[in-house]
Amino acid sequence: MTPNVIQDMQRAMAERFGEDFEIPLASDGLASLAQHRVHRDFLDRPVDPELLKMLCACAMSAPSKSDLQQRDIIIIQDPDLRARIAALMPQYAWVRTAPAMVIFCLNGRRLPQIAEWRGKPFPNDHCDLLFNAVADAAIALAWFQASVNMAGLGGCPVSEIRNHAELISEWLRLPDKVALYAGFCLGWPSTSGHITPRLPLSVTVHHDRFTDDHARGDIEAYDERREALHPARRQRDPDVWGTANVYGWSEDKAGQYAEPLRTDFGAYLRRRKFNLT
Amino acid sequence: MTPNVIQDMQRAMAERFGEDFEIPLASDGLASLAQHRVHRDFLDRPVDPELLKMLCACAMSAPSKSDLQQRDIIIIQDPDLRARIAALMPQYAWVRTAPAMVIFCLNGRRLPQIAEWRGKPFPNDHCDLLFNAVADAAIALAWFQASVNMAGLGGCPVSEIRNHAELISEWLRLPDKVALYAGFCLGWPSTSGHITPRLPLSVTVHHDRFTDDHARGDIEAYDERREALHPARRQRDPDVWGTANVYGWSEDKAGQYAEPLRTDFGAYLRRRKFNLT
Repeated sequence: MTPNVIQDMQRAMAERFGEDFEIPLASDGLASLAQHRVHRDFLDRPVDPELLKMLCACAMSAPSKSDLQQRDIIIIQDPDLRARIAALMPQYAWVRTAPAMVIFCLNGRRLPQIAEWRGKPFPNDHCDLLFNAVADAAIALAWFQASVNMAGLGGCPVSEIRNHAELISEWLRLPDKVALYAGFCLGWPSTSGHITPRLPLSVTVHHDRFTDDHARGDIEAYDERREALHPARRQRDPDVWGTANVYGWSEDKAGQYAEPLRTDFGAYLRRRKFNLT
Repeated sequence: MTPNVIQDMQRAMAERFGEDFEIPLASDGLASLAQHRVHRDFLDRPVDPELLKMLCACAMSAPSKSDLQQRDIIIIQDPDLRARIAALMPQYAWVRTAPAMVIFCLNGRRLPQIAEWRGKPFPNDHCDLLFNAVADAAIALAWFQASVNMAGLGGCPVSEIRNHAELISEWLRLPDKVALYAGFCLGWPSTSGHITPRLPLSVTVHHDRFTDDHARGDIEAYDERREALHPARRQRDPDVWGTANVYGWSEDKAGQYAEPLRTDFGAYLRRRKFNLT
């Protein structure tokens, strides 16, 4: 264990949540989870294929609902395919420049396939199949992110691929009941990054029953704390929304989702033969 | 770093995936992810509230789609509430006996709430809201599981709570657009557990395009490998399905999902005011 790991964790938690934490127990692994940073700028140094394979294996070691393993990873190695994906989202330079990219998919196909192979009926082609497959894909991505961090690499999820879901699904030859979840770009980070402040646990961790009676005040305080640590580079659409005096997380997120986004995503999932009823 | 961490990772990967891996890079954190084991038997030793809080903070440090933070944790501390939940699923003894239990929820409520507070329209009440909230909740649970493991504790997700979704949602006073994802039981493990073998990467990790042309043979080999390592204690419903000669993962999972399960889960989500279109 690194000598100052308890202090490192305390510092990360204070920055993340704006309160002092007791750290009753520490390890380098826990510190890595607590200190998670997003990375989008990378050194010009490749990610070795054996290393990438090992990171995928770590991701696939994560929990999976009833051990059903309803998720897959597609490693993007063809430069032409990578360039076509990157060209769809030129505003995200790292999709073009990151040394490696993988795509996580939900797989609702394997379970009915197994049923067919084993001569069993499959009366479970409904919303729960989608729900479990989304969760499995997200768990694998989370474990992948943790592995990337713990290997000394850095990276970021790319859910923008879902804004071009049909086209990318076609390029990846996804069959029925397999759908895109998120991309992930990774490499050796060229900057130190920073800890993203998160909502205080008073808002997101409850005891015995859910309550958000006090949430508004706590979120406003979070907006101010976050803005003081990492001021927004620019306000979103000031021509539409005017210029806010306190431009914090909630103002930014409310503005981001004031435009219709991925309103056709349910239709995409249905075209992929997921049954949402 | 523990001296034999590379060998530990190699052994875990071989047991997990049935092939020899190159480990170009290792750490205690990576080894913990690779060696993940599920734990359902615990010592009679409490989980300190400060430790549980720290584990929740680690979970909430995980990535979140567009930093929207659409997930919450509810710590179950009222013994009566805990007993009522456990009584719904007596076949899962650990829900009653584990020293601690938390419940992960998806929160599609905070984003429209913020929009309202900031005087913005919210034209995004559709399937994408649900999709992102499920993913955020699953990512938080995954990071929680990793934290539990790295703290030397053990635990298991409990998705059985979704088989009693209405009742438990009522007990937890979940408001509209907040829904159950999964419970999680944890404590200090009393047994060493074992590594669950997973599908080989030839089935779940693809290059540039999805393919499952060769999946059937690879899954049959996996069935045999897994059954040899950890034979099923009993076959599922032999009175209905007969007794299989090779009773592996695919036979077991096909049998499990040959009965209708959670067919009303979509209706539950709609009653919680999620829009699935």
